[in-house]
Amino acid sequence: MSNKIFHLSRLKNISFIGAGNVAEHLARRLFESGCNLLQVYSPTRTNAPRIADQFEAQLVDDLSELSSDNDLVIVAIPDDAISKATTAIPRGIPVVHTSGSVNINVLSRSESYGVFYPLQSLKSGQTNHETIVPILIEASDPDFEKQLTELASLISNHISVCTSENRRKLHLAAVMVNNFTNHLYTVAENYCEQSKVDFGLLKPLIFETAKKVQENSPASLQTGPAMRNDNLIIAQHLAMLENDPTMNEIYRMMTQHIKNYPHQ
Amino acid sequence: MSNKIFHLSRLKNISFIGAGNVAEHLARRLFESGCNLLQVYSPTRTNAPRIADQFEAQLVDDLSELSSDNDLVIVAIPDDAISKATTAIPRGIPVVHTSGSVNINVLSRSESYGVFYPLQSLKSGQTNHETIVPILIEASDPDFEKQLTELASLISNHISVCTSENRRKLHLAAVMVNNFTNHLYTVAENYCEQSKVDFGLLKPLIFETAKKVQENSPASLQTGPAMRNDNLIIAQHLAMLENDPTMNEIYRMMTQHIKNYPHQ
Repeated sequence: MSNKIFHLSRLKNISFIGAGNVAEHLARRLFESGCNLLQVYSPTRTNAPRIADQFEAQLVDDLSELSSDNDLVIVAIPDDAISKATTAIPRGIPVVHTSGSVNINVLSRSESYGVFYPLQSLKSGQTNHETIVPILIEASDPDFEKQLTELASLISNHISVCTSENRRKLHLAAVMVNNFTNHLYTVAENYCEQSKVDFGLLKPLIFETAKKVQENSPASLQTGPAMRNDNLIIAQHLAMLENDPTMNEIYRMMTQHIKNYPHQ
Repeated sequence: MSNKIFHLSRLKNISFIGAGNVAEHLARRLFESGCNLLQVYSPTRTNAPRIADQFEAQLVDDLSELSSDNDLVIVAIPDDAISKATTAIPRGIPVVHTSGSVNINVLSRSESYGVFYPLQSLKSGQTNHETIVPILIEASDPDFEKQLTELASLISNHISVCTSENRRKLHLAAVMVNNFTNHLYTVAENYCEQSKVDFGLLKPLIFETAKKVQENSPASLQTGPAMRNDNLIIAQHLAMLENDPTMNEIYRMMTQHIKNYPHQ
């Protein structure tokens, strides 16, 4: 890879614990930015061989095999497994986790430790090389923070140094704007299918709504029957959803919350 | 306006009843596409003079002044006012309304009547000339349907002929994917402000989530603690929202619905 010549981060040799969507996305982006993917370890092993193969890394079966050549080990596994997995990493190898919610202190037995949290919904199969992924950084000391920031800057233009507490708050807000929003899309798509109308007609609306928020405060953009206090339409919509308890409950609650909300 | 020479619709001379966001958006798009804006009438008058002035139209104070030169009158006023306002329109002038929910039959005393519903959230100040607005058409007869389709094609590439019943269903789904989604953004922005974390860090996530739905089924894109059944994180998030009953209730309900939902 010719671009490895221009590698500007001190964290060059990188290994992964975990082989899920976050690991694969970060591995790809770092590999393409000139990092060496040294080793991959996965407790479940399902995707680990594919990732190791793809990014020319060695597959390891035991954490004691992690090489001292590693400049960084990235732990990208479920939150509740991080603490246990990391006890087996040799203390001298710098380590970060990628969780939105787990405190940095869970890694404190290492000499250098931190957090490297990609604030994006990363799902296998939808990985996009151009996806803009903000990276939230936290580190055990200022020098390691600088190293992690340099590394993040290879793959993102949105880097923010952030305490564990603030990261957890941003993660909670991310659940609201991404997971819950996507669930509304899902429920609406299902409703359209049941009703034999074309969900595709709503796609420009979905896109524009998200696009407008890039430049405007969402509070200033609110429209719709709840905002207009149009109780006739609200009653009609609820009647149309009589046989759909899920949609009915969501509609009722969101409408009430919009009505009660102090909009600009 | 030199582009008026190339006007390809039979509906050339157009007037508006109403002067709100929908009227202004459609008036601008049609004017720029070469239509003549003949007259503007507004029950409230607030914005009517500005719109008349902007698009070189005559301001009228009474519906009896609507000229027989009109090829079309577009009624863009609140749903519950449409029926009453339209009784005063001379029967010979073709008329459409722009509502997502009102039945076409409300206009049936006219000789030619229909619906011209822009499926987009149109709010003053955020009007974007490039905004993609699907237009849902319904008409009293096939020839008028063809005329309305021609007119819509001047300002949109997304035109769909649609019954009143299906339009109402799409409007309901639009409330889900637009108004409720925007409310989630609003609530998250407020939470970030209260928590002193940067809502701007979530904007790439918001944008990508809406962008992915353009190409993928949202059910296949679902991620997050509810989808993973990560009850530890869910409990933490709910504890963080202990003093925010609105967010707490939204979080609890959406999480439960995602957990119960049959995902792909």
